[in-house]
Formats: sequence, structure tokens, C-alpha cells
Amino acid sequence: MAKNDIPDIIIGRLPIYLRALRHMQAEAKLTTSSQELGSTVGISAAQIRKDLSQFGEFGKQGTGYDIAFLVNKLRGILKIERVWDVAVVGMGDMGHALARYQGFTDRGFRVAMVFDNDPAKIGGQVENYVVLDTRDIVTSIRQSGIKVAMLCVPALAAQEVTNLLVEAGVKAILNYAPLSLSVPPGVRVQYLDPSIGLQRMTYYLD
Amino acid sequence: MAKNDIPDIIIGRLPIYLRALRHMQAEAKLTTSSQELGSTVGISAAQIRKDLSQFGEFGKQGTGYDIAFLVNKLRGILKIERVWDVAVVGMGDMGHALARYQGFTDRGFRVAMVFDNDPAKIGGQVENYVVLDTRDIVTSIRQSGIKVAMLCVPALAAQEVTNLLVEAGVKAILNYAPLSLSVPPGVRVQYLDPSIGLQRMTYYLD
Repeated sequence: MAKNDIPDIIIGRLPIYLRALRHMQAEAKLTTSSQELGSTVGISAAQIRKDLSQFGEFGKQGTGYDIAFLVNKLRGILKIERVWDVAVVGMGDMGHALARYQGFTDRGFRVAMVFDNDPAKIGGQVENYVVLDTRDIVTSIRQSGIKVAMLCVPALAAQEVTNLLVEAGVKAILNYAPLSLSVPPGVRVQYLDPSIGLQRMTYYLD
Repeated sequence: MAKNDIPDIIIGRLPIYLRALRHMQAEAKLTTSSQELGSTVGISAAQIRKDLSQFGEFGKQGTGYDIAFLVNKLRGILKIERVWDVAVVGMGDMGHALARYQGFTDRGFRVAMVFDNDPAKIGGQVENYVVLDTRDIVTSIRQSGIKVAMLCVPALAAQEVTNLLVEAGVKAILNYAPLSLSVPPGVRVQYLDPSIGLQRMTYYLD
């Protein structure tokens, strides 16, 4: 099936299935069912079977899914069998947290470069990274071939820095600024805005 | 329409519409269309009209949406006309970032309490908050009536702290730990896991 035929909403669920499956692996489980996986991630078993069937035949009637096999398939589909170098822009609290974040290990990503525009930070060190000057983003990222960036700059600077990232060849931006970004076709943005996650839950509160 | 009749996936899009509408307001726009809103947030105009129609008649054929009116309606639906007190648990980099985060202002939330289990941090200050002892979570949160929490503890501690939050009466947890949490019915979890956002985009990269 052609890449664009699969709805993005399905693609968005695959990493969630993968996280739950890896958690099962860590608990030394070998097989699971769409029912069990569904109750772990809060998605119906029927939806999970339908989502996975887009990519082939992964389970067997009666015996369920081999976890290791499904993990490998999902990693292949999501292209995280390889490790993607990631640039982090903005070395405030959030940028620091990401530079130190242990959750990328073995999930397909590695922080490779960090940037800030503050002269007091440029040339200094965060974890094992020397902080580079935001003005050099285009050159540095182009040279390294980095395609993935995490954006942790203040809202007022976010669009300007995004334009530089796009110019540098970045195709995937994880945006922590509380602001919708404009990007050309072919560039994707995902938002990690805590207010959005909270607002989605308050709807259900009394 | 009863609360549970509206799919959660629709509820999840409302905060995104709201963010885009507020951004338009900041640019002094007064009206918009489902086409314009759709191109801003990357969702089809038809989907937006369908989503909003679940809650009433908000636009007029030909004249589109009054932005201020729609903003107020969405804030009412999402119950963020009021301000929700939020507890932040875990005062590492991420917890610090959240305690200082400016993006909650006017979006329905206010950090009210911060917790950590490190004796070197307990009693100290982060922003204007005195760091409380994680062991006192149940008492402190119960007394304050807080229903919303952000969880920034290491993965290994996340489930244990979640159990305390649930015991304390918390109903909505924004989880930054790279781990699926088990919670009883009636408690909601949203995940802010950067790897999930990144993995959703690498699918489209070459």
C-alpha cells in the first residue's frame, strides 16, 4: 500500500503500541493479544487489529501476536531500526531536559547538536554537547545531514528558528513552543504543548 | 448530547482549534472560516465543521465563525473558563521547566504545588514554590482538592507515584515518563513522550 494511503491517525498510534509492547518485553512476556494490548493502551482490540492489518498479517488467530516479531515490524515501519541524529534548539530548562533525557536510548534517536542564541551559553557545555550559535544553524545542520529537530525556544522566536531549520533541510520538528508553526509541504511538525494535553482531560472533570 | 457520546478523538482536537483561534485573536482577526482554521491546524474544513457541529451551531453559512464567540464556546466545553490548580511531581529538569512555564497563563491552569523525594530538594524553592515531600502527596493534594497533576519522575518511580496521585483524588495526569501507566476507570492519562512524537514523523522520512 502506498505511504500516503495510510491515514496519519493510524501512524500516530503505532508508536503507542510499540511503547506498550516494549514494556511487555521488559516484563519478559513473549506473546500478547489485541485485547491485552488494547487494554494497556486504552484502544479497542478491533481498532488495533484494523490498524495493524494495514501493514500485513502480524498475528495468528488463536495464538495472538509474537511480541518480538511485532516490535521488529513496527520499528521497521516507523524507520527507527536506525538511529536518527536530532538537533535541539534552545537551551532553557526544556532544552536541558531533552539533552539529558534518557528516554531516547534504543528508541531511534540521539541528540547530536544543541543550539542557543545567548552569548553566555554559546560555547559552553550541556551534558556532552558544546552549545552552538543559533545563527550557524543552517550551515551546521546542512553539513551534518540532520533531518530531525526539537524546538524549545520562546514562542516569539519559534517561527523564525523554524524557517532556519527548514532552510537547513530539517523535515521533522517536535515543537515545545505554545504556538502553531507554518512549514512548507514535506515538513512535519508535532506539538508537545502541555496545555493541550491538560485541556483534553479537563473536559471530563466535574 | 451525553458526555460519553462524543468520541475522545474529537475532544482531543478542540484544544488544537482553540490554540489556533487564540493565535488569530492575537493577530486582531475577528472572523475565520473552517477552511482557514483547517489550513492552520492541518485538518480538513469538513472535519472541523463536523467536530464543532457536535456541540451546536457555531458558524453561519457564508460569514464563517466569530472568533471570540467560538473561543468562549470552546473554553466552556473544555471547562477552562476557570483556572485548575496543578501539582507537579518531580523537580528534575522537566519539573523545573514546567514550574517556570509561561504557557499556562490564560489557558486554564496554574501550578499550585511541586513535589520531589530528594531530601536535598525538599523544603527548597523552585520559582515561587516550596518543594514538598513526595511522601506527603496524598495529604497535601487531598487537602487542596487538586484534580490535575503533571508527572516528571523517573520511569521506575512513575507507577508508584501515580498510585499515590490516584489515592489523593487526582483525576487527570499528564505523564512525561516514558512509560504506560495503569490507572483505574475515571482517571485519565495523557502522555507527553518526545520519542512518540518523533517516531510518528520518521515514518514519513526517507
